[in-house]
Amino acid sequence: VSVSREDCVALDAADPLGAMRERFALPEGVIYLDGNSLGALPAHTAAHVGRVIEAQWGRDLIGSWNTHGWIDAPLRVGAAIAPLIGAGSDEVLVADTVSINLFKLLAGGLSLRPGRRVIVSERENFPTDLYIMQGLRDLLGDVVLRVVPHGEILGALDDSVAVLLLNHVDYKSGRRWDMAQMTEAGHAHGALVLWDLCHSAGAVSVDLGLCNADLAVGCGYKFLNGGPGAPGFLFVAGRHQAEIVSPLSGWLGHEAPFAFDTAFAPARGIRRMLCSSPSILAIAALEAAVELWAGVDLAQVEAKAGRLGDLFIALVEALCEGQGLLLSSPRAARERGAQVSFAHRHGYAVMQALIARGVVGDFREPDLIRFGFAPLTTRYVDVFDAASALAAILREGVHRDPRFGVRAAVT
Amino acid sequence: VSVSREDCVALDAADPLGAMRERFALPEGVIYLDGNSLGALPAHTAAHVGRVIEAQWGRDLIGSWNTHGWIDAPLRVGAAIAPLIGAGSDEVLVADTVSINLFKLLAGGLSLRPGRRVIVSERENFPTDLYIMQGLRDLLGDVVLRVVPHGEILGALDDSVAVLLLNHVDYKSGRRWDMAQMTEAGHAHGALVLWDLCHSAGAVSVDLGLCNADLAVGCGYKFLNGGPGAPGFLFVAGRHQAEIVSPLSGWLGHEAPFAFDTAFAPARGIRRMLCSSPSILAIAALEAAVELWAGVDLAQVEAKAGRLGDLFIALVEALCEGQGLLLSSPRAARERGAQVSFAHRHGYAVMQALIARGVVGDFREPDLIRFGFAPLTTRYVDVFDAASALAAILREGVHRDPRFGVRAAVT
Repeated sequence: VSVSREDCVALDAADPLGAMRERFALPEGVIYLDGNSLGALPAHTAAHVGRVIEAQWGRDLIGSWNTHGWIDAPLRVGAAIAPLIGAGSDEVLVADTVSINLFKLLAGGLSLRPGRRVIVSERENFPTDLYIMQGLRDLLGDVVLRVVPHGEILGALDDSVAVLLLNHVDYKSGRRWDMAQMTEAGHAHGALVLWDLCHSAGAVSVDLGLCNADLAVGCGYKFLNGGPGAPGFLFVAGRHQAEIVSPLSGWLGHEAPFAFDTAFAPARGIRRMLCSSPSILAIAALEAAVELWAGVDLAQVEAKAGRLGDLFIALVEALCEGQGLLLSSPRAARERGAQVSFAHRHGYAVMQALIARGVVGDFREPDLIRFGFAPLTTRYVDVFDAASALAAILREGVHRDPRFGVRAAVT
Repeated sequence: VSVSREDCVALDAADPLGAMRERFALPEGVIYLDGNSLGALPAHTAAHVGRVIEAQWGRDLIGSWNTHGWIDAPLRVGAAIAPLIGAGSDEVLVADTVSINLFKLLAGGLSLRPGRRVIVSERENFPTDLYIMQGLRDLLGDVVLRVVPHGEILGALDDSVAVLLLNHVDYKSGRRWDMAQMTEAGHAHGALVLWDLCHSAGAVSVDLGLCNADLAVGCGYKFLNGGPGAPGFLFVAGRHQAEIVSPLSGWLGHEAPFAFDTAFAPARGIRRMLCSSPSILAIAALEAAVELWAGVDLAQVEAKAGRLGDLFIALVEALCEGQGLLLSSPRAARERGAQVSFAHRHGYAVMQALIARGVVGDFREPDLIRFGFAPLTTRYVDVFDAASALAAILREGVHRDPRFGVRAAVT
């Protein structure tokens, strides 16, 4: 291999994002490459949430909705996320979960395209995207899902399509769509384009505004580090906000929630997509995490994500040659998210052996070992050590130990 | 008045629930009578949530879904709530929010009554119940809402009704439905009965099983003290669990979420109503709060709620005679929740003046001052002091001070 561990130490020393790692509380002795599933804990989150619990909820009680800005938190934290995805500050709302926001925006997208009832998406989607589409179709009866393999999306578009739903970065392979190109392809047929940013927001460049995207959802607990089960976010382009109808018309989406009217009237702007209040403790943790992004140069994030992945691919292919690993991610960094997957016939056992050595990635069916390289917390030396550990395991056959072969219920 | 402050001190000393108050962190100098809007902070919540953040999320990261039982939290905390509402431990799930759970169970109720498309409810509902019904109707097109005044519910029932939705305790007046009688009335027409327990769970006796109720939703942040915006809960009677269809079919409601199948197949049992994971921080706070109920005698909760309200009504009517207050809650404790409201033409200003004196209730349009008597935290002496403060304000005309007359955007 042409890259040594010392080279990686030098790369870390020169990394303009290198200082960000100190803002996180990472455990000793662990190389954490699963920030694409659950982002690491920011160092100040526990203290911030503790203050919200004791000094806001405990001391000021109900008055905190006003005095501590709880009522505005979904919009305020949405505005803080907006620059990470190329959105305007009044185009993003933090609310509910990714799945529920998908439901809102799929139904909302149908409301913006009367007469059209077709939703196009790809079979490789993260399953909840598929399941939410299926649930909406079963509820409405007249919606048609056109779910096709990745390579057949363009051919599935025609002038009957209301919404094209795509995962910007694929959760398994890390494959990244060209957002500008695909948005334009959808628009050429009059369809709205809904982007699922779960595996790209906070990982690589996202510019919804530049791409003229219509709708988007994203995750608070992966690369945004908002904590387990953190609230999701949603984006509605300003031009659609006056017309979109949320199917989940709860009271906090009303134009005057505290008038307690009997008839629903949607709020102006993105707030109409709010249903009820998110957990203030959960949104406080997300807000603390999003604060870390202030001042981060997103071009550096994109560049580092690419370099970490390139380095991992090069090291693994050199160190593990002949060990049955097959790259399942795109080789070109611009076509990939901040993650790399390899297929291996004993992938499950290999990942368990890696975890036992303190290298935490994850396994995805049927045979993928998946490594996430969150740009704010991952060092080049972590990539070197992870590739070396993988090579040692395969070389020594450690994964053949029976204790690594039994699948747990959940991974 | 026949009851003195000393009498109230004696009542507190003899109160079998009196020791529960020490389990909460209540601020000094405040008489908090708004636990029906946001419940007080349990004393151990901050430490518990802090441990989940630092020792679980921070240290064990993604592995915590298994090792710290995160994946089972919606069912585990649901099972802990079950005894408070007369449900079986496999009939309750913690998830999402009250509004979203209402949407799930209204659509799910329609799925259980094919051929019927009428939902009956009362105009006095908390608005989000009305709005969610309206959103579902607008989405589906063929659903008919029959929303009638409180007194006309029985006449609105016929054999076309799929779901009867009732708020067990009315948020404004505190009026309580006879759950057994109304459930039977719905069943007599083949309708399902869906109870909104937001203002009754943790406040008064609720026995869904004894009443043969079909469906229910409830709130985690009022009398259950789960924290601002805490996750809600939902109940589906065991007999309906194999057939009910959730319209929000996210991946955690799948029978095998980690198989990542492309087709949705609902989980067995109540877990099919789960959509995606709740915030683990939010559910940890709710779990800490629900722990406080272990060993609480619910008959004592019902009895104390009634006595506190009876005492408040008697004191206010005696001390404030001729001051323009009109009781808007039922006089009989068994027909009332753990709350009492009075109408006053300057209600808004009166409540602001009370809050300025440290007596925190709330105001509801158009003219109601509302006082909640959470049985675990409210003392008889608090009721005495609150009634005395109200009498003093009205007698001295304190509420005529212009600073109390201006309505804030949110109350």
